[in-house]
Amino acid sequence: MDSFEQRLNEAADRVTVALDALLPRAEGPEAHLNSAMRYAALGPGKRLRPFLAVEAGRLVNADERGVLRAACALECIHAYSLIHDDLPCMDDDDMRRGRPTVHKAYDEATAVLAGDALQAAAFEILAHPDTHQRGSVRSRLVERLARASGPYGMVGGQMIDIRAETEQFDISVVTRMHRMKTGALINYAVEIGTILREVEDHIRRALEGFAHDLGLAYQITDDLLDATGDQAEMGKAAGKDAGQGKATFVTILGVEGARDRSRHLAAQAKDHLEPFGARAEVLREAVDFILDRRS
Amino acid sequence: MDSFEQRLNEAADRVTVALDALLPRAEGPEAHLNSAMRYAALGPGKRLRPFLAVEAGRLVNADERGVLRAACALECIHAYSLIHDDLPCMDDDDMRRGRPTVHKAYDEATAVLAGDALQAAAFEILAHPDTHQRGSVRSRLVERLARASGPYGMVGGQMIDIRAETEQFDISVVTRMHRMKTGALINYAVEIGTILREVEDHIRRALEGFAHDLGLAYQITDDLLDATGDQAEMGKAAGKDAGQGKATFVTILGVEGARDRSRHLAAQAKDHLEPFGARAEVLREAVDFILDRRS
Repeated sequence: MDSFEQRLNEAADRVTVALDALLPRAEGPEAHLNSAMRYAALGPGKRLRPFLAVEAGRLVNADERGVLRAACALECIHAYSLIHDDLPCMDDDDMRRGRPTVHKAYDEATAVLAGDALQAAAFEILAHPDTHQRGSVRSRLVERLARASGPYGMVGGQMIDIRAETEQFDISVVTRMHRMKTGALINYAVEIGTILREVEDHIRRALEGFAHDLGLAYQITDDLLDATGDQAEMGKAAGKDAGQGKATFVTILGVEGARDRSRHLAAQAKDHLEPFGARAEVLREAVDFILDRRS
Repeated sequence: MDSFEQRLNEAADRVTVALDALLPRAEGPEAHLNSAMRYAALGPGKRLRPFLAVEAGRLVNADERGVLRAACALECIHAYSLIHDDLPCMDDDDMRRGRPTVHKAYDEATAVLAGDALQAAAFEILAHPDTHQRGSVRSRLVERLARASGPYGMVGGQMIDIRAETEQFDISVVTRMHRMKTGALINYAVEIGTILREVEDHIRRALEGFAHDLGLAYQITDDLLDATGDQAEMGKAAGKDAGQGKATFVTILGVEGARDRSRHLAAQAKDHLEPFGARAEVLREAVDFILDRRS
């Protein structure tokens, strides 16, 4: 079996190649838009969500091409959320993954539209008959991604995150915010395989539990990186949360408390993988990778 | 039969009531987001696209509840596009339909997120099993709306529209821009019924031709209103195109030339309705209503 890093990179490459074919070419008078979409979606990135989708899909023997296609849609949603997050009226970030953010490389109007277009592209990718999936599967993939990314999921979580700058939220609201903002899409990644292929209830629940704990551990690590990380290694600005006086796991639990919490969640996430035995080894390594990451 | 205005208002009321039930309540720490979504989607508006969907759906005897639900999704897309269009980095409009725009009534970050969330809500509404439509119908509704609103449709058209401020486009590009920016969603409105219920090819083509000509006539009227309209009646700023030196039907054809073109397209749109005889009278009146409107 290949090493973890090899499998991570292989999944990233496959998603990037597939996305390149799915996104519109930069042609015609609207070329500026398509170019910005491609800049955001095809640029450097770990492609962590697609990787989780591919590996969880393997565990349930879901159709590989179907998983890959849904993973591309998920990556479009992730890419659009980063474009809009970086806008001056949101986080106002000039750099992302060591490159100028979309509104810096292009302009603000193009960044708004490129995000909007990537969201639409995601749902077209899932719903298109080219997928060779049954209509009921395609509409379920759409429904779940729309739910995970919309007001009850990612975007709702982003709204709470912004409010956290001016309101004093307790740990229950911060937890809920993270479950919506980051957790929902990680859940979706792991869920894709079980939408494409029917699985027993205890298998579905095992994967749900895994995604649930991993998602929160991921976000606590993010808070830790913001508080203690190295700006050059991260390719973006650090220390923004504390500067804004925002409630995070680190401001509420302290650095050590947050580290303990994320270790505890990581162990719990691995426990959920027990029904899969050795076949889930790559996902167990993914947990460690996510916790030990430096950007 | 009720008068045209009565039917327009009745469709608007039905869509508003249905949307009110479909959109998330303004509760919890993310209430701000949901409140902004509702402000944008449930506020005053002619609900022209849902009206076209309802009346075209009737012509092909499509399931009424199904049409109404898809019309709600379409209105969410329309509402999100207006929120983002009004942003300072886009058209920078403070007023819309006589009320403060979303970024004025709330703030810019909330406006970006409310638009994003309305787009996700649109696709969730279409894909949800509550619709009682077959999965293949639901995924087709999603696929067509994503296509009509994404880089090949509305958002692509908006990008060309912005580029038109700095580039000298000829009438073929301006026509293409309008077909994408406004035409694609009007097409979708009229198409909904034929997705829900199979129709003969000549019926589908008749409705497509109708939507195609009406969409362009609609946009030429918009250009005329911008050039000659009354700001108070329109509830938004007028005269912006000329001020920006932008290529429009009016700047290219002149006011009289643009009026001629829209009258010609209106007659052609009505000709397409011939197969439906007297049953299409309401849609014929809709053509006149759209051309004679003052806002």
